[in-house]
Amino acid sequence: MSTLTFYYARNTCALASHIALETAGARYEAVRVDFARQEQRSAEYLRINPKGRVPALVTECGILTETPAILQFVAQTHPAAGLAPLDDAFELARMNAFNSYLCSTVHVAHAHRMRGYRWADDPTALEAMKKKVPQTVGECFELIEREFFVGPWVLGERYGVSDMYLFTLANWLEGDGVDPARFPKVSAHRERMRADPIVARVMAAEAA
Amino acid sequence: MSTLTFYYARNTCALASHIALETAGARYEAVRVDFARQEQRSAEYLRINPKGRVPALVTECGILTETPAILQFVAQTHPAAGLAPLDDAFELARMNAFNSYLCSTVHVAHAHRMRGYRWADDPTALEAMKKKVPQTVGECFELIEREFFVGPWVLGERYGVSDMYLFTLANWLEGDGVDPARFPKVSAHRERMRADPIVARVMAAEAA
Repeated sequence: MSTLTFYYARNTCALASHIALETAGARYEAVRVDFARQEQRSAEYLRINPKGRVPALVTECGILTETPAILQFVAQTHPAAGLAPLDDAFELARMNAFNSYLCSTVHVAHAHRMRGYRWADDPTALEAMKKKVPQTVGECFELIEREFFVGPWVLGERYGVSDMYLFTLANWLEGDGVDPARFPKVSAHRERMRADPIVARVMAAEAA
Repeated sequence: MSTLTFYYARNTCALASHIALETAGARYEAVRVDFARQEQRSAEYLRINPKGRVPALVTECGILTETPAILQFVAQTHPAAGLAPLDDAFELARMNAFNSYLCSTVHVAHAHRMRGYRWADDPTALEAMKKKVPQTVGECFELIEREFFVGPWVLGERYGVSDMYLFTLANWLEGDGVDPARFPKVSAHRERMRADPIVARVMAAEAA
């Protein structure tokens, strides 16, 4: 496969795909999109991703967006890395159910803190949304801690893309006003992920 | 595969998975969850899906939730139906990117009309969210119409689960105060889907 081009921005969910690419040993070039300069709204970037969001992955076949889709794609195109249960339809669906919950519910709950303007114009409504974020994000992680996190990794014995995705969103807990200590399994997982040299390398590259 | 049990509620995104099961020729029993009676919050249902949402699919291996995960699972376990590009990682990712956009952005935009209480408590905030829904849902469908809908089916020549999912959400346009006539391709697709005897049969079963 020819070199991939990966578009990301700092402190976004793109980190999950970035870790997946690096862990899979993919040949890719990472390109930063500067949200502070509104680069995601530039004509140039909108030609890559008309949604004006990250991540986006340019492949020889075309451009992919959306974290759950990119995660499965990286795992499928780098099977030796073993980042997804590719040979078991049920286990793969369990992975996708977890990733889908993160993108459609957990990330969305979080987004109401800083990006409430997506769903309302009234400034008092934005304040009301922001106020509820500690509760809604907290409830999501309670459910993850109690019901979905199998251990030692998210889905059980095998490390994979769901670990990278959960880690990415768990990094936002303090900012969302949620104490990670409420979730011992998620917190221990987050520490283990941070200590991973590949994860540390990707985070350093994004922060540089 | 043994008989599946499929939990759905009327007028929800579960319709997409319901159509997929029926089209795939799956052996399944459909069980209605009555949202008007808050059955999704019952202890019995929360044992099936602790999120208190639909759809949920009980399989011999365990329980699956989340529309994108269930759609790919149904396609993978019924390959003869040809409902997903299973043999092409890029095309499968393109399908999942589309489905992920529907679950994390389009469905979420829609949900701010009736379920704004998920993200704010203040009644005026709920009104402000409701007010913006025609704009946000309209923008999502503009993007689908202009950028993502390939034709004749969503992803191109092959009919599949993304058609079922788009159809499900497109049925909500009028209720969201968005004129479907603004989206000629999506509207024509919706009419073709409604005329499909399998789709009609599933819709009749849900309405019965």
